[in-house]
Amino acid sequence: MALDDKHWFVETAPEAGMALGLKIQARLHHEQTPFQTIEIYATEDFGKLMVIDGCVMLTSRDNFVYHEMMAHPVLFNHPDPRRVTIIGGGDCGTLREVLKHQTVEEAWQVEIDERVTRLAEEHFPELCEANHDPRAHFYFGDGIAWMAEAADASLDVIIIDSTDPVGPAEGLFGAAFYRECLRVLTPGGLLIQQSESPLLHLRILKDMYAAMRGAGYADVKTIGFPQATYPSGWWSATLARKDEMINGFREGEARAAKFVTRYYTADVHRAAFAMPAFFLEAVKAED
Amino acid sequence: MALDDKHWFVETAPEAGMALGLKIQARLHHEQTPFQTIEIYATEDFGKLMVIDGCVMLTSRDNFVYHEMMAHPVLFNHPDPRRVTIIGGGDCGTLREVLKHQTVEEAWQVEIDERVTRLAEEHFPELCEANHDPRAHFYFGDGIAWMAEAADASLDVIIIDSTDPVGPAEGLFGAAFYRECLRVLTPGGLLIQQSESPLLHLRILKDMYAAMRGAGYADVKTIGFPQATYPSGWWSATLARKDEMINGFREGEARAAKFVTRYYTADVHRAAFAMPAFFLEAVKAED
Repeated sequence: MALDDKHWFVETAPEAGMALGLKIQARLHHEQTPFQTIEIYATEDFGKLMVIDGCVMLTSRDNFVYHEMMAHPVLFNHPDPRRVTIIGGGDCGTLREVLKHQTVEEAWQVEIDERVTRLAEEHFPELCEANHDPRAHFYFGDGIAWMAEAADASLDVIIIDSTDPVGPAEGLFGAAFYRECLRVLTPGGLLIQQSESPLLHLRILKDMYAAMRGAGYADVKTIGFPQATYPSGWWSATLARKDEMINGFREGEARAAKFVTRYYTADVHRAAFAMPAFFLEAVKAED
Repeated sequence: MALDDKHWFVETAPEAGMALGLKIQARLHHEQTPFQTIEIYATEDFGKLMVIDGCVMLTSRDNFVYHEMMAHPVLFNHPDPRRVTIIGGGDCGTLREVLKHQTVEEAWQVEIDERVTRLAEEHFPELCEANHDPRAHFYFGDGIAWMAEAADASLDVIIIDSTDPVGPAEGLFGAAFYRECLRVLTPGGLLIQQSESPLLHLRILKDMYAAMRGAGYADVKTIGFPQATYPSGWWSATLARKDEMINGFREGEARAAKFVTRYYTADVHRAAFAMPAFFLEAVKAED
């Protein structure tokens, strides 16, 4: 059957010859910001849907997987994460997960487009429920410039929760930015970045590995997780660590965590690092 | 954008308000068999595509994940799998993976619709490359009737590689069939069944757990894996074991395996059992 514009939001991944359709009830909002086009839809079965430049950013129904996996693995992999910055993440969902960690003393959300956050407050209030936490800080502006001004060794964890590597986010996927992050990380500090689909975007992942290794990180590893409303339904995030290997995590504390998660568990944490054979082959370090 | 019938094959999951589109070059084949409608397409980026009754069965590009995960975890979970039967699996991809195991002495593929296998031989010959293995046996007919005639304690592993629980496969998802399989399994024997999307089909999974437990299996556990061309891109298979708990696997042998896999590794095996928090909550045994 064909999918018409009236009843379906459709995102095509033209480089992959595939498309995702979500059945919609109505388009609730549409605006062109200085940076991008943002739309909000009411869907039949996925709650609300935010779209930026034609790409699904999140739905009410399945964003929990992405947000939990962008926050908890990297934070439990760090021995004592106190100072955290999120680059992007304007919907505030990653910030909410980060602030579930009592070790965190200060968390910045550095989002280029304030309209993303204002629309999240209106349409996804559940993601913004930690925005008034006194540890939460907001800066609306360019993440690359923010990082360039950050002091040496001033952050334990950097989370790059950005759109795809085209448009405003392109500069967040290169060795120059990774070197800046390396300077700003404390010894043993960790960076994590959303890194697209292992099935569809292996070229981007290989380039990311090369750029992170070239920037001087001691170790790079990827975690995988399902994300139904992103192309292929299979997504990833890639960690890079300063000075040390990415080995083990605070498993006991993860098991004893007092906060609620719907996707993340300590077992899921460990499992997420088990990437498939073809992926390990593609990103293995050259000797 | 809209998706037209001419350039896109579209499968809607109406119960989930979502749809998957695959860009097509041509429809190569179309037939109505006594059981179902089968179509073969040439796609832009996923190789060939087989569709049954409007649902994606497999594509050349991503079937390896499904077929490896239907075969290797259950076989390495069994201490010594010699006699294996696949119910369904007419494309022969699961049979190919099963026959990679040297412990297997005899593997039956029991497919109701011989046309699926004949079309696989023509359009997916790589999946049929083990069909002439002397250990491979084929029966084209009803899986329920086949199982009813099988001798007590005559199979070590049963793999139910069926279509969704509507139409010809419906009877493969109920307690009566599971009880029949239990009778036919050897002590410690294992059954595995494809069990739909953890995100979209939790009701089916809960019913499956209840039916398997009710049928008398000692333990039931689910593995998850990505499958880009099935609804939500996130799929599962559920194992049930006769007499014993599903704990551990022949990890050393899995690590030392002489055959090639693209998705499966020993680490992936272990990881696949780490299902998310919401899923464990949904299927936990009632006290």
